[in-house]
Order: sequence, then structure tokens, then C-alpha cells
Amino acid sequence: MRLIRFLYHTKLYWGIIEDDTKVTVLAHEPFVKIQPVRKKIPLTGIRIVAPANPSKIILVGLNYKNHARELGLKIPKQPIIFLKPPTSIIGYGAIIKYPGSVRRLDYEAELALVIKKEAKNVTTQDAHKYILGFTCLNDITARDQQRKDVQWTRAKSYDTFCPLGPWIETKLAPGNLSVKSFVNGSLRQNSSTSNLIFSVARLVSFISSIMTLQAGDVISTGTPPGIGALKRGDMVEVAIQGIGVLKNYVR
Amino acid sequence: MRLIRFLYHTKLYWGIIEDDTKVTVLAHEPFVKIQPVRKKIPLTGIRIVAPANPSKIILVGLNYKNHARELGLKIPKQPIIFLKPPTSIIGYGAIIKYPGSVRRLDYEAELALVIKKEAKNVTTQDAHKYILGFTCLNDITARDQQRKDVQWTRAKSYDTFCPLGPWIETKLAPGNLSVKSFVNGSLRQNSSTSNLIFSVARLVSFISSIMTLQAGDVISTGTPPGIGALKRGDMVEVAIQGIGVLKNYVR
Repeated sequence: MRLIRFLYHTKLYWGIIEDDTKVTVLAHEPFVKIQPVRKKIPLTGIRIVAPANPSKIILVGLNYKNHARELGLKIPKQPIIFLKPPTSIIGYGAIIKYPGSVRRLDYEAELALVIKKEAKNVTTQDAHKYILGFTCLNDITARDQQRKDVQWTRAKSYDTFCPLGPWIETKLAPGNLSVKSFVNGSLRQNSSTSNLIFSVARLVSFISSIMTLQAGDVISTGTPPGIGALKRGDMVEVAIQGIGVLKNYVR
Repeated sequence: MRLIRFLYHTKLYWGIIEDDTKVTVLAHEPFVKIQPVRKKIPLTGIRIVAPANPSKIILVGLNYKNHARELGLKIPKQPIIFLKPPTSIIGYGAIIKYPGSVRRLDYEAELALVIKKEAKNVTTQDAHKYILGFTCLNDITARDQQRKDVQWTRAKSYDTFCPLGPWIETKLAPGNLSVKSFVNGSLRQNSSTSNLIFSVARLVSFISSIMTLQAGDVISTGTPPGIGALKRGDMVEVAIQGIGVLKNYVR
């Protein structure tokens, strides 16, 4: 099932994409229960927004072995986590704003998951019960500032630095999905979640051992090798098998 | 004026502390307008909670010259920022939970500010217009994990690792306030905000150049030298001149 969050006549809705033409509206957020109402809206009349409004976004560094090597960093024994602020989120089709202070702006294609219900000290075995579904995330990074600060927060926290979407796919086994990125249609990253150092279930378990996860929180699983720079005017896409394509523009 | 957030008969309120005995209840959150209602509640009947429910908490590392030296780190040319998740917040009197996986748990006394209204690209001169007031923050840190991870997020993001309070003081010049911490009544940190590398106004300006600040967001200004370890059973206090004392217990 594809869960979509959208604006229709300036009002915010959740819905289910039924086919290429229509969305079935939900009565409320899809966390406790997915409750369709009778109303259907044509896809052409909506504006897609990011499919989550999280209280926190937790990301994982260096979760593909080859990406760690590409950055000249050791493979970690435990996940290295960091946070992006909710104000960094944008949805499908929105503009990534290139800050004047940044010298190099990178894309990072990632598989992300949205939490379904409060989770604390969850086991790897139970992790799937706390996942609403999966979406694409582009962990936009000011690479020059990341290197300079050592701490990654500033480099990854600018407004518009967290494209998310286009929707949440609820029925998806995350263990072997192709993860790609494209800049202006040209392939830049091409890997599979089978190369993750720490699995989706392991990440939910690990992060929930630190902080209570809440419905709508987003966890992103790290990026594969092939990172590179964006310039003003570029179109960047994150394509994940079984989900779809998250497209954004750099200005 | 002292703005307090509290539970009274399980309901959440904002209020103004009138004297040692009473709180005047506010009609709503104090961001757009501070609107008292007729109702007064005795202080003895309330439970104080943290005086903010932020969408993000932005902290600054190494903002006192001597603390940078104590950690063997260079004085930064720009503020080094990081985030704590909202789930880490606790209020006055609440328990800091010592995680089983942590070897060394440190206190860090800090002056924090609460944002009054949306702020983006604010100048140093205008920063004060966006500040509702000031409170105490204890940036609890798993020092062993901070060193191991290099990234600070995990070490600072555990549930209960962000004691905040006891209230917001709205009339306060932040430039020269004594900042102290005590463990079981014994003085551990003792400095003044006059030793800050980056002033409160500079921090608001710098951070708002990266991310949009929203009403209720919290910025913490960094900790002075004298950091040290807590053990289970300890009582820890952050005392800031003109605000008051934030007291918590470690279990």
C-alpha cells in the first residue's frame, strides 16, 4: 500500500494511492489505524508533501562498507547516528536551496523508514512491528562544512536539506532493494540494501535502545558509494526499488 | 517575569510565578502573547515540567575557552552545533536514567534560551526580539561514547539526558551571569557567561542562518570548565544567576 501526504485546496490530507489517477483520502494519520473514507481525489489536483512530520529524524553514517572506504573512514562496530532537524524536510518536487556559505553540496540517496508507534528497547526480532513503511530520503550534505566542523550537524541541517518521499510503501521487505541516485538523469549511486552493514531491524533496535521513537519519526539507513556534488540548476533523483523516485531541484 | 509550565490535576498549563505561593495561569502558550487568566493555583499543588516543548534543541560545543582546553580541543572559529532529540527533555526534579551501556556519565551546566517566534537569517542586533527568555539546561553526556563515536549525537541523545528548567526568566541580560553546577551540594563548575566565545545574540544569528527556528525551540550556549562524572544516586544542580536552580537525580 502506498501512503501519500498531500495538499488539496490548501488542506493537508493523508491518502492511499489507488492507481495512476486517484487517491483515497484517510480519516486521520495512518499510525494507529489506516482508515479510508469514501472520498477520492484525482492525483492531478494534489500537491505531494513529505510523507512524515517527525519529531526527530535519525540518520546513520557509514552504513555501506564501500562508502566508508570512499570517505577514508573505518567501518564502525556500532551504528554512528546523527540527527537532522524537522525544518530540513521537503517533499517530492521541492527545491533544495544551495546556501551561499557552502562550497560543495552533495546528494546521498538513502532508504528511510517511518515509525508506526512508540518504540523503546525494541529487539531486532520485533522491529518490523514498529515500522509503518519505507520511503526515499536524500541526505543533502554541505561536504566542506562537514569536513571542517568534524561534527556533522551543521552540514546536514540547513532548511531543505532533507528531501523525503514521494510516499510510504507499507508492504516491502527492505533486505535487498536497489538504491540509486541520478543527477540530471545520469546514474551516480547504484547499490543494494543487501550491502548494509547494519540492517533496518538492527537500526530500529539500536536507536530505540537510546531514545524513545515516536509515531512518524524517520530513520534513514545510510548512503552507498558514489556520492558527489550538486550545482545550482541540477535535478537530483533518489530511486529505490519497490518505492519509487524522489525528485528534487537545486537552486 | 518567570514563565512556568506545569501539571495540575493531570492537565498541562503555562503560568506566571507571582510569588513563593502562587501561579497565575495563562490562557495559552506564551509565544504570540502572554495572556494571564483570573485563575491562580497554589505552587504546592503543581508538578513543574520542562518549560518548553521544542521541535528542536540546538546545542553548542566548546563555547567557553577553558572547556575547549580541558578537552584538549582547539577553540573553534565558528560555533560547532549539534542536536538533542526532544525525547531527551525532562523537567525540574525528574530522574536522569543512567543507561546500562554507559561507563561515564557527565553533567554540563548551560545557559539555554527559548525562541519566541519564527526566526530565519536574524542579525546579531535583532536576535533579542526572537528570544522569549532564559532557563537552565544540563547537557548530560555519555563521555565514553562521545569519545568512541566521534559524532556526539548518541552520547547526548538518551532519554532523560536533557534536564531543562525550572522556568523561563523573560527579563534577563545574558552577558554576565554566573553559571554553576553542584553534585550532591559540592561546587563543580563556576564560571560566567562573560567567558562565552560566541554570545547569545551571535548564536541565534548563526543558527538561524542555517535552520529556521520556531517558537519553543531551545538553544543552549555551551558549558564552562569543570565537567565531571555522575554516579547513580547523585543529585545534580545547575544554578544560573537571575534564573534559579535546576535540580535532578541520577538513578
